[in-house]
Amino acid sequence: MTATDEREAFPVGLDFEADAALIEGKTRQARAALDRHDDGVDCWLTFARETTATPDPSLPLLLDFGVVWPTAVVVAPEESHVVLGRHDAPNARALGVHEVHPYDESIREALSTVMERVGAERVGCNWDPDDPMADGLSHGLYRRLTDLLPDRELVSAAGYVGEVRGAKTDRERERVDAAVRTTERLLGDLREHYEPAWTERDVAEHLRGRADTLGLGTAWDRAYCPSVHAGSDGEVGHTRPGDRRVPAGELLHVDFGVRVAGYCADLQRTFYRPADGAEPPAGLREAFEAVHAAIDAGKAAIEPGIAGHEADEAARETVVDRGYDEYAHALGHQVGRHAHDGGTLLGPRWERYGTAPERPVREGEVYTVELGVDTEWGYVGGEEMVVVTDGGAAWVSEPQRELWRL
Amino acid sequence: MTATDEREAFPVGLDFEADAALIEGKTRQARAALDRHDDGVDCWLTFARETTATPDPSLPLLLDFGVVWPTAVVVAPEESHVVLGRHDAPNARALGVHEVHPYDESIREALSTVMERVGAERVGCNWDPDDPMADGLSHGLYRRLTDLLPDRELVSAAGYVGEVRGAKTDRERERVDAAVRTTERLLGDLREHYEPAWTERDVAEHLRGRADTLGLGTAWDRAYCPSVHAGSDGEVGHTRPGDRRVPAGELLHVDFGVRVAGYCADLQRTFYRPADGAEPPAGLREAFEAVHAAIDAGKAAIEPGIAGHEADEAARETVVDRGYDEYAHALGHQVGRHAHDGGTLLGPRWERYGTAPERPVREGEVYTVELGVDTEWGYVGGEEMVVVTDGGAAWVSEPQRELWRL
Repeated sequence: MTATDEREAFPVGLDFEADAALIEGKTRQARAALDRHDDGVDCWLTFARETTATPDPSLPLLLDFGVVWPTAVVVAPEESHVVLGRHDAPNARALGVHEVHPYDESIREALSTVMERVGAERVGCNWDPDDPMADGLSHGLYRRLTDLLPDRELVSAAGYVGEVRGAKTDRERERVDAAVRTTERLLGDLREHYEPAWTERDVAEHLRGRADTLGLGTAWDRAYCPSVHAGSDGEVGHTRPGDRRVPAGELLHVDFGVRVAGYCADLQRTFYRPADGAEPPAGLREAFEAVHAAIDAGKAAIEPGIAGHEADEAARETVVDRGYDEYAHALGHQVGRHAHDGGTLLGPRWERYGTAPERPVREGEVYTVELGVDTEWGYVGGEEMVVVTDGGAAWVSEPQRELWRL
Repeated sequence: MTATDEREAFPVGLDFEADAALIEGKTRQARAALDRHDDGVDCWLTFARETTATPDPSLPLLLDFGVVWPTAVVVAPEESHVVLGRHDAPNARALGVHEVHPYDESIREALSTVMERVGAERVGCNWDPDDPMADGLSHGLYRRLTDLLPDRELVSAAGYVGEVRGAKTDRERERVDAAVRTTERLLGDLREHYEPAWTERDVAEHLRGRADTLGLGTAWDRAYCPSVHAGSDGEVGHTRPGDRRVPAGELLHVDFGVRVAGYCADLQRTFYRPADGAEPPAGLREAFEAVHAAIDAGKAAIEPGIAGHEADEAARETVVDRGYDEYAHALGHQVGRHAHDGGTLLGPRWERYGTAPERPVREGEVYTVELGVDTEWGYVGGEEMVVVTDGGAAWVSEPQRELWRL
């Protein structure tokens, strides 16, 4: 079967319209945010070049193509503009969202004209020490901007990026949902396909192969997606799947996600390979329940307006109260165009995370809720996805409620 | 046939050893450059995070894996170090090139220790207003570095990046050569496979399909690789292939490259679809000869020590002397891990290109030499690749010497 045939036979719809309408919606969202806020920022400037090698994560929210020459997308409350090399102008016109200003030798004049047009004094730019997704402006391009726009004040647009990127539109939610349904399905099917002779690498190749036949990419770097850990004898982390197999009576842990029409899923499932058909030992069941009780507690703490660390604390206390070590990472990150989609983090107030755990949780944002504990049978890890509603949070994934048997 | 079978049957060897030896070579090259230069820079610091979304183009020269948490690679004349999250440490140890310093909550202490160890006062960092490949440090991470390293002087490492990235080692050259041989083969085979009913999109899908069956990626964004222009009735630029066909007596122009083991090719070929088997008209042959005479003149001007714009001038004069409009882009860019690989540019001194055309051409660098002219039969474009030798330049591609007939 071709990828097209596989997609048609697959129970999750995977084909979506082109990105123009989605980009139109994100641009409208950004214009509304600029209109609403009272911080003196007159426009949001995304400034990028050679996006194959040095992408700005904000650009795909605003354009459906990559660029080579320096390119500026300027969003203001009443309008939006794109200033770009003449070669790229046909793509911008085909998109039809922004007013198009092509240039030949230098971006300087056309960019100044647009800045005059929108009356920009304070210009929000894409930098943020703590949030990679709001930090797409390189330091070299920042220096170039200070030369191109000597009379404007450049400030961080991190607040806008966090808000616009985070709150998913309906068109974005459809794609996230399809990625989650697909990932759940491929992980669930592993119970039928798995063979005891399989190494971690075989498990990984099986899952990637299924994504390939559907014509889907992985949600993060293919060498680490999925991440697979077999049995109790390995280091859990961002490592490539190796040649360990699952001993009878031990665990298989998989962290996986596919990308559908530009949007990601990120889920963990823990499988038990029984010895002689036996039930999992009581200590293992307790560990599984502790992990999922903590995930439930984290989800219960999520509502618009809390700071990210509050949800982390609820989960962290739960797992520690049950006698396990606390997890060495954040409870949850946002998911969108990337598996780690930046903005507010449901994380502890550790220096590594900067201000991200202090930031507010907002309606429409999609988060993972994830943690795990080490046991003598292997790593028990759980990762679900939730969306923030007007008064709390709703599952996006269907939570794992028991160990899956291999 | 599977991709593995296709690769084995293909006349170009496409399988290379893992990247560790290549990275060891690039690290040695960087250490030697730091040792040789007398500009007071004590070490070269590459500082990156979440490299799936916000890659630093220098990182793949130094590590064979991506990272999530803030990660610092520090190269000094006598040693090299990597400071990274504990989860990523197994990958760094497996690479075996740098001394590994894992951290848990904050990079601050471990990074300071390494800076003490290498006696760093002036620290070269990855920023450059004019060179995207030397500009991987985001402005947010730059601000974070000024906080993490308050007592060090941060300066641009652009000179080092240009030198280390540009001059290809033998292991890199083998991969570039394989990418060029493969791209030439796929473009050449188009003469047999082409059908008159094909649209630009069909040509693009055919070439991408052949790369897919070999398990190879495209050298730049898949939506624009190849770039295809059929006949005289279209705009040549960074546009997606459309539904135009080649009228009899007109041209097909293709700009294409594959990536082999991380390294790219970038070539243009022009094809003529004869009307009733006729020879190309004299005016078309003259245009083709003018383009290739200019490419030859550009190549002849290349030698170590010239500034990039000197080669551009030689080619530009040649095509103008023959009565054609000058081309609206640079004569050539470097090719390596990316199709546009930064550093010195064989380009005119236009503001858009900043200082890149003023920079020196160095032995071991690989460049495109490319230009085209519009004619009544369509766009005549040529693009070859050369490597800089100790006294001049040698072809990497086999230059197109006549119009290829469809």
